[in-house]
Amino acid sequence: MIRTRLTETFGIEHPVFSAPMARVAGGRLAAAVSGAGGLGLIGGGYGEAEWIRHELAEAGNARTGMGFISWKLAQAGAPGEALLSEVLARDPAVLFLSFGEMARFAAMAQDAGVPVMAQVQDLAQARAALSAGAVALVAQGSEAGGHGARRGTFSLVAELADLLAREAPGVLLLAAGGIADGRGLAAALMLGAEGVLCGTAFWAADEALVPEGQRRAAMAASGDATYRSHLWDVARGIDWPEGFDLRGMRTPFQEGWEGRLHALAADPQALARWRAAAAEGDADIAGPIVGEGIGLVRRIRPAAEILTGMVAEAEALLGGGWQRT
Amino acid sequence: MIRTRLTETFGIEHPVFSAPMARVAGGRLAAAVSGAGGLGLIGGGYGEAEWIRHELAEAGNARTGMGFISWKLAQAGAPGEALLSEVLARDPAVLFLSFGEMARFAAMAQDAGVPVMAQVQDLAQARAALSAGAVALVAQGSEAGGHGARRGTFSLVAELADLLAREAPGVLLLAAGGIADGRGLAAALMLGAEGVLCGTAFWAADEALVPEGQRRAAMAASGDATYRSHLWDVARGIDWPEGFDLRGMRTPFQEGWEGRLHALAADPQALARWRAAAAEGDADIAGPIVGEGIGLVRRIRPAAEILTGMVAEAEALLGGGWQRT
Repeated sequence: MIRTRLTETFGIEHPVFSAPMARVAGGRLAAAVSGAGGLGLIGGGYGEAEWIRHELAEAGNARTGMGFISWKLAQAGAPGEALLSEVLARDPAVLFLSFGEMARFAAMAQDAGVPVMAQVQDLAQARAALSAGAVALVAQGSEAGGHGARRGTFSLVAELADLLAREAPGVLLLAAGGIADGRGLAAALMLGAEGVLCGTAFWAADEALVPEGQRRAAMAASGDATYRSHLWDVARGIDWPEGFDLRGMRTPFQEGWEGRLHALAADPQALARWRAAAAEGDADIAGPIVGEGIGLVRRIRPAAEILTGMVAEAEALLGGGWQRT
Repeated sequence: MIRTRLTETFGIEHPVFSAPMARVAGGRLAAAVSGAGGLGLIGGGYGEAEWIRHELAEAGNARTGMGFISWKLAQAGAPGEALLSEVLARDPAVLFLSFGEMARFAAMAQDAGVPVMAQVQDLAQARAALSAGAVALVAQGSEAGGHGARRGTFSLVAELADLLAREAPGVLLLAAGGIADGRGLAAALMLGAEGVLCGTAFWAADEALVPEGQRRAAMAASGDATYRSHLWDVARGIDWPEGFDLRGMRTPFQEGWEGRLHALAADPQALARWRAAAAEGDADIAGPIVGEGIGLVRRIRPAAEILTGMVAEAEALLGGGWQRT
């Protein structure tokens, strides 16, 4: 058993959260992770109310958390706040906020008695999250799949641990980005984190909402096959704010458009082709959204097996198994 | 004591190498690191013969290694090989090769009985280094200062550990990039490395050849203050091959030129200003070449103190000190 302040605070068995991957981390995945002793987060992402209601129903009675993209929730205005209120009324284990000004939504969660966790990519964001009353920070490194920024996980976790020790010793720290097995969990604990948040590892769960073609492509891929780009946002027509791009897998189609994304945005046929491929899971055209940790993941398994395998490996390493003979 | 196959193979006390930072890691720094139980590498870098001879003399009788930039050595032709032969005749503890085709130089080292260590940034480079007979790989993540590439340290180390376990179990693995204290050393061991190579941590040593103004600026900086760019190479007029850029600190001067480096290359006054600032240590203009780990380094100390502090911290963590109370 790996006990940390994170397991104590959230009353969970293992210090592992599954990331709220938009449209991928539904209720079944989150429930499976929570059922196995971690804490599963549903990917509320861009705030699609019907999808969120459906996935909350799928989660059943499992204790799960919900993630939102802050700038998108803000853009939605009153309907966004109504949706957040509806989610908070369900008493989620945690509200997870990323990417943008979060103070208003954090206050709503606090009023509802729901703890807030903030994903941050640098020190300025960490300080903003502390001001907003986050009880936990997720230090997300550039290795992560999906949206993020440029700092690597390794030193960001340690530097944020120092910042919290000085300025907010009661706030918890999780590491995210490139952590897909027990080695990553054990390493994160050494760097000063009290747990980890894993996206890519659980993207490869049976319960994740991922098209079959994407799965096949990703199981054969190295982390070298991923890169950060604005292409996904351009292709989907999502107007992300400055400072964030997205990591996923390269494809020949995408490489042909890199460097001329304005032209892609103005080419309805190319956009339609990419969107159809993304929906169907054609990974030769639309790259699966996974992080560098994909090179550590070789098969699709039940989420519970991924989680228990990760924890068992970390326990063995922490017990001295890092010493090779 | 942290014993690994790396300490056994090289007959050293601690699994810590100092990076061969060009023009910064001279003989005194390398000798101090080796004297304290690690292994110090002299930054042979671009192959400046007089500098290298001087620094070998400064190292005295200490057992140190030498690093070279492979593409630059290849570009130098016969004089480059003559310089390498001269260095190999001094029987360094290791020849460290980075950045480019290394087979020819590795063969020369093997003929001289000198072990070869290769710094790599992805799996293709790792396989090339194995073909060339490297006895150790350094998995260098994007967090590192100086030249490098895009993958983060966290998952690259684990993925290369898997590759070595499958294809070359006798080859050693070191982690580099973002590792500046005992937390990083302990984390690297968890990920499957058998030691670490630290640049930034030893850039901040008394013995490093760093102008005072750069030191002052860096001791106040967060890892957030660094970025990867081609600016340093453009400003110095060094024609680096595709695929590598350099991490160092941002400056207002540099930010003014980002996005128009061709114009900088064509502006003799601006180039002269940057070069003078780099030589004098004016860190408002020419950014110090340090990695994201700079945010973990708060003072200039003797190299021996840096090394023993790092090892003591790692030992405490490996002994269970990661468990906060």
